[in-house]
Formats: sequence, structure tokens, C-alpha cells
Amino acid sequence: MGIYDIVIIGGGPAGLTAAIYACRAGWKTILIERGTFGGQAAITDRIENYPGFAEGISGFDLMQGFYQQALRFGCKMLVAEVTGLNIHPGLGNTDFGQGEQIKTVETTEGLVQGRTVLIATGAQARELGIKGEKEFVGRGVSYCATCDGFFFKKKKVAVIGGGDAAVKEAIYLAKLAEEVLIIHRRDSFRADQYLSQQVLTLPNVKIRWNTVPLEIRGEQKVSALLVQNVKTQETGTEEVDGVFIYIGRKPNTDFLGAGFTRDEEGYLLTGQDLQLATPGIFALGDCRVKSVRQVATAVGDGALVMAAVDEYLRSKKEG
Amino acid sequence: MGIYDIVIIGGGPAGLTAAIYACRAGWKTILIERGTFGGQAAITDRIENYPGFAEGISGFDLMQGFYQQALRFGCKMLVAEVTGLNIHPGLGNTDFGQGEQIKTVETTEGLVQGRTVLIATGAQARELGIKGEKEFVGRGVSYCATCDGFFFKKKKVAVIGGGDAAVKEAIYLAKLAEEVLIIHRRDSFRADQYLSQQVLTLPNVKIRWNTVPLEIRGEQKVSALLVQNVKTQETGTEEVDGVFIYIGRKPNTDFLGAGFTRDEEGYLLTGQDLQLATPGIFALGDCRVKSVRQVATAVGDGALVMAAVDEYLRSKKEG
Repeated sequence: MGIYDIVIIGGGPAGLTAAIYACRAGWKTILIERGTFGGQAAITDRIENYPGFAEGISGFDLMQGFYQQALRFGCKMLVAEVTGLNIHPGLGNTDFGQGEQIKTVETTEGLVQGRTVLIATGAQARELGIKGEKEFVGRGVSYCATCDGFFFKKKKVAVIGGGDAAVKEAIYLAKLAEEVLIIHRRDSFRADQYLSQQVLTLPNVKIRWNTVPLEIRGEQKVSALLVQNVKTQETGTEEVDGVFIYIGRKPNTDFLGAGFTRDEEGYLLTGQDLQLATPGIFALGDCRVKSVRQVATAVGDGALVMAAVDEYLRSKKEG
Repeated sequence: MGIYDIVIIGGGPAGLTAAIYACRAGWKTILIERGTFGGQAAITDRIENYPGFAEGISGFDLMQGFYQQALRFGCKMLVAEVTGLNIHPGLGNTDFGQGEQIKTVETTEGLVQGRTVLIATGAQARELGIKGEKEFVGRGVSYCATCDGFFFKKKKVAVIGGGDAAVKEAIYLAKLAEEVLIIHRRDSFRADQYLSQQVLTLPNVKIRWNTVPLEIRGEQKVSALLVQNVKTQETGTEEVDGVFIYIGRKPNTDFLGAGFTRDEEGYLLTGQDLQLATPGIFALGDCRVKSVRQVATAVGDGALVMAAVDEYLRSKKEG
């Protein structure tokens, strides 16, 4: 297949945006996606906060737009799982500047070589694994208050979890919902003190300590949550219109070996230009350490990264 | 009008995105725009690199989508020119935390007060002011190679200017166009040495030193550029399909008094959370110091800024 200028791993909003920009700039680009083009966004029922679609749009339709746009500008697409990333010294090809290290991406469809690699593999919410969870996704079950909280104005919602994300999102939801019920399996929050103290002052937030969810129930959409107290073993039913699950997220960076700096949860650390410590390798979108993970910020990353990618490729080519 | 939680100055892509996020989060928000909602993007003929619109979309239509979306979530809109921004100590209103400084925005329609101010006033390209320039905008005249370069594949284009932006965009265009002609009024580039040396090695880039453009000509679209050598006074005609003008851009930050840190061109300096040195005042989009200025990165800024704005408002409210 030859050596690509740019190999993008991951076909979510960040990867597809980078593909659009890379191809428009004339770089030989391939994007590798293991499953659904569009990533987590493509399986989101409705996206209302991506600017440009006044009435909102289904996540699938939105991401089809991204995908077709990247195809239109000539991006080559490969459906394969990436299993490893290795860096080799220059192959002696005089087309490449001295010292340029060619990167080899191992996939289930063979090796792909590139001068730069853009890691845009995203992250995924951890699931509870209880009855009703999968069934009601998009119909009351959500993993993102910023995305879906607006649908629960003046309604009653449960938040599952007790870490930073759970408490932060409970605070966010408390401004919209009539009542927020936090279900947490321990007797205190793991969230930082500032957030924990703040949530305790909110009059419309109630907390069930030492409690775990057992089942999500409803007809067309969520209407109740079955819970159990882990100390007393007592079970009970909470009437709620929505269940927001925050028991953690996990970046898809396990395929990378040692030598790539990640935080303790596995998110990749980059410079402001989105480059990793290894020259020519970049991380963008949800898989990197950042403060807001939205389609809008992934798209920002996809456009931003090309400034440093362009500069890297030009400096090596002309060097 | 009372005190708003968030006052957004500027209704381009960054400001409208921030408005969408602010209103969805339940904050009392007003956006002030002096002219066309959508900013520079709204007067861009066609936008092909904003992800989600596979076939491209007119800048006007795209920005109407942003605007309607912000309206739908309840953003109050005010059409007025902002003439000043002042910071006052707390007004003694017990709703506000100790030490919170209320901001007053002076406009041609009166004073607007807010707990936070988001400056999203954008930047504008400097114009040559020659005959044919305004007439052919979107029909061969462009101020953005990343936006419009793709339309000039295998064609001949002129780049006006000799600074960093002009040379960088000439390099970008050289990968797409058949020939790039740089028209520069001096006998050497003002661009940095790295860029200047690089552009001189490109076989399809020609340079007319000591030359200024006099007139842009064409029928339906640009077909020629009339130029003059400033040393010999000789005039001549260059046949070109496009004219890219890079004689500088100017952020719309003149309305701010001293006390706001700007670089020498007037772009606002922010932290990574987009906050200025003055707490509660933020800058986003093209008016701040950043490396890529696109609708996609403006949208990223609009979503990103809300993390710090939320935190500021909550910390003061609960303080």
C-alpha cells in the first residue's frame, strides 16, 4: 500500500474531521475504523448541541455526513482493528528526510505504514450491565448529561455513581431537572471535596448511600429504577424519568504498548499542538487528556491538529 | 434588564456555540451582535470543511442553523455595537458571592450587566481596496486558502502579501494549484526564514517582487490580475483563476480598554481554559491567540469555554 503521509486511527468525529482537513490539504491519508464510522456519536439517538443543526439531528445521520465528506475529499477508508503501533527508523527511502521515523500500524487486515499517525480512538462509557440498561439507551438511559440533560427539564432523574463525573453531572442536572437522585454504592463520594460539598447544598438533590441499581424499568421509556441497599439488602423502587450512568469511562488506548504517556485512566497526554512526546504521533478527541469531551470539541481537535501535522510533514520532507 | 449570568459579545460561530451550550445548561444568557449573525462565516460563499455537511453548505445557511439553534434553547439576542467593557465590584446584591465583580458592557443600545463576559468578536481580513476585489469575493477572490484552496486544484492562483500568513498559504496552495504566483510589494519576505526558504524551493511557485496589485478583472469570475512594479512603474497582466489576499488580519478588540492582555496585533491572550487574566472574562474564537482559525475550531472553543464558565459561576454562587 506504500507509505501514507497520514494514518488516522479511529473514525469518530475527531478522526473524520482530521481526514477532511488532511485530504483537502493534499496529503495521502488513510483512516482505519474497527466498527461503525462515527464512533460513539453515531450510536447517539439525537444530538442537539452540535452547532449547525437547529432542530437537532440523529447521531447516525450527523456522522454519515462527516463520513461522506471525508470520502468526497478522497480519504481512503480501511475497516480493521488496530492491534499495535511501532516506530521504525527511516527506511532509507530518499524521499524522506534524515532521521524521519516511519510508523507501522498493525491491524487485523495487515500492516499500514505512515509518516504520521493520528490516534483518535475515543473512549467509551462503562456500562452497569443490569437489566433494562441497553434496552432504554436513548429512551431514558444516558451516559452524558451535557448531551441529554435538556430533555429532562422539570423531570426526575437518577444519577448512578459517586466519582467526579457523577457528582459534576448531578450538579449540572440539578439546574434542569425537578429532582436528582444520586445512587451510590458507598457511604461517601469519591468526588473531590469541592464538588461533594457543593452537591450536598442543592435542595433538589437527594442521595441514596450504600445503594446499587438492580434493574431499569419502563414501557416505551424509563419510568422506574429498582435499587438495593447493600447493607440492609432491602430493595425498593424509585420512580424516575431518566437514569444517567457515570461509573467511569475508558479510553480506547490499550492497543498501544509502553512508551506512550498516559494518565492513570489511560488517556493520552499531548502538547498544546496535540503531539505526543513521540514526534509525528498525535492524539485527538476523547482519547486524550482534556476537559470537555463533545462532538464540538472533537471537531475542534480535528482541525487544530492539522497545523502541527502539516508542519511536521513539511519539515521532514524539505529537511 | 437585570444581571445576566453570561454576556456573549459576538454572534459568529464561537459566540453562537457558547450560547447553545450556555442556554442548555440553564444559565441566563444574552448575546450581543453588531451586524450579521454568523460573523465572517455568514458572508462566506460556501463552506466545505465544516464537518457534517458532506456536500458543503453556504456560509449563510450554516450560520442560520447556529442562530436558530441558539434561539431555540432560549438565548436572548441583542443587536447593538459594543463600545466598552468595565468591571465593577459586587453590587451588594446578596445573590452574588463575596468579591464577585459584575461586568458592565456598554453598547449603542444601553448598558448590559453580566457575571461573566465571553468575548467572541472575531477578526477580519484587511482588504486591498482595489477595483474588482469586493465584486469577486467568493468568485475567485478569497482570504482563506484552507477554506477555498480546494476549488483551485490544477488552476493558477495569485497570493498577495509576503508575511507569515501569505507564505504559509502559498505553500499550502502549491500542493493543490498548478501554479502559485506571489505578488509582494517588497524585495524580500517578511515571513520567517523557515517558511521563506521553503517556499523558494517549490517549483510551481513564482514570485513577483516589488509588485503591487492594481485591479482584479474577470467576467463571471476572476480571470486576470493587473499588477505594477513599484520600482520601474511598469504594469502588466497576470492570468489567474484566483486571488488570495493576505495583507493581514485584525482582531475586533479595539473596543476594549487597557488592562486586557493582547499580543502586538491585538489578539487576546487566554489560559488553556480560555479565561483572561481578569476572572470571569473569557475570549474564544478568532479574536484570541491561537494557531488555527476555522469554524471547526471556533465551535470547539465555544463548547470548551463552558467548562470554565460553569465552574466560575458555580463557585461564586455557592461561595
